[in-house]
Amino acid sequence: MPKLWNETIDAHRQAVREAILDTTTELVEGGGLRSVTMSQIAEKTGIGRATLYKYFSDVEAVLLAWHERHIQGHLHHLAKVADQPGTAVERLGAVLAAYAEIARRRHGGELAAVLHQGEHVSHAEHHLAQLIQGLIAEAADSGDLRKDVPPVELTQYCLHALTAAAGLPSTSAVGRLVDVTLHGLRPNA
Amino acid sequence: MPKLWNETIDAHRQAVREAILDTTTELVEGGGLRSVTMSQIAEKTGIGRATLYKYFSDVEAVLLAWHERHIQGHLHHLAKVADQPGTAVERLGAVLAAYAEIARRRHGGELAAVLHQGEHVSHAEHHLAQLIQGLIAEAADSGDLRKDVPPVELTQYCLHALTAAAGLPSTSAVGRLVDVTLHGLRPNA
Repeated sequence: MPKLWNETIDAHRQAVREAILDTTTELVEGGGLRSVTMSQIAEKTGIGRATLYKYFSDVEAVLLAWHERHIQGHLHHLAKVADQPGTAVERLGAVLAAYAEIARRRHGGELAAVLHQGEHVSHAEHHLAQLIQGLIAEAADSGDLRKDVPPVELTQYCLHALTAAAGLPSTSAVGRLVDVTLHGLRPNA
Repeated sequence: MPKLWNETIDAHRQAVREAILDTTTELVEGGGLRSVTMSQIAEKTGIGRATLYKYFSDVEAVLLAWHERHIQGHLHHLAKVADQPGTAVERLGAVLAAYAEIARRRHGGELAAVLHQGEHVSHAEHHLAQLIQGLIAEAADSGDLRKDVPPVELTQYCLHALTAAAGLPSTSAVGRLVDVTLHGLRPNA
């Protein structure tokens, strides 16, 4: 077959895959991770069940692929936030706020815990830690943050402190958590 | 049977139970949670296997009882630390440092995760949160800590930030984590 034809097939496959994962997002947002079934995905995507099974062997495989894309989306978003204009400490504040909002919306339950044990998550967490650590080091160099604690330790402090967002009732409470966490990074008066 | 005899039996049973859990502590410290077996416990405690099974149906039951006592011990220790002389903020610092040291030594792995899902743990966490929240409220009242964030939120911030201790390589790193966490609680300059 000519190369162009192969490319067309690849693009089609990719589009179907994305459509399946888009449907999965809708279903997860509607009824939670546990509620997703292969029949629902096929129906809502507008493909046959047989076609769906050519792409994914079972619902766990769909959820894993969906979760990988989901986490990757968070990471892209956070990298974009970090890339906005402003001082390092301002950009750090924006990244921590965006991450806390993500942590707040995180799905709970056993299935979410299993997905979170995946390698793609530790990979993404590593990237996020690098991003935050870079901003902390930059802000410490310009005198806005404390220099008496290594940036790698301050990064772990931030990431753990912000997991408290999961139990918070409002966006303003998340804002206060970010403020308190950032304040911990400031130089001792 | 006379009452005295019953009391003697109760005391004996309690002593055997404690001895079994003491042995379990040794075994867990020696080889981790997974390594503990009923045969080892019986042998090291100096009782027969048949006797051991009169006290505990299986090794999971021993580990659960051991973990309950273990967590209870941590809680007693933290309450004692909170009860020492000093200002509220000094006592809070001491409690956070003691808790971070506990978090640092926490056993990892699947079995530890299962034990940590037990009701006794959420019960203990609730008690610890109450303890810390009381100290934070007291210190905020005396002007040493910020008043613009509710003590309940500051407490959750502390507990989550200090879980970062689990990955830290040294006691001095834990000390820095506690210092940073406490600094987050200070009033904005």
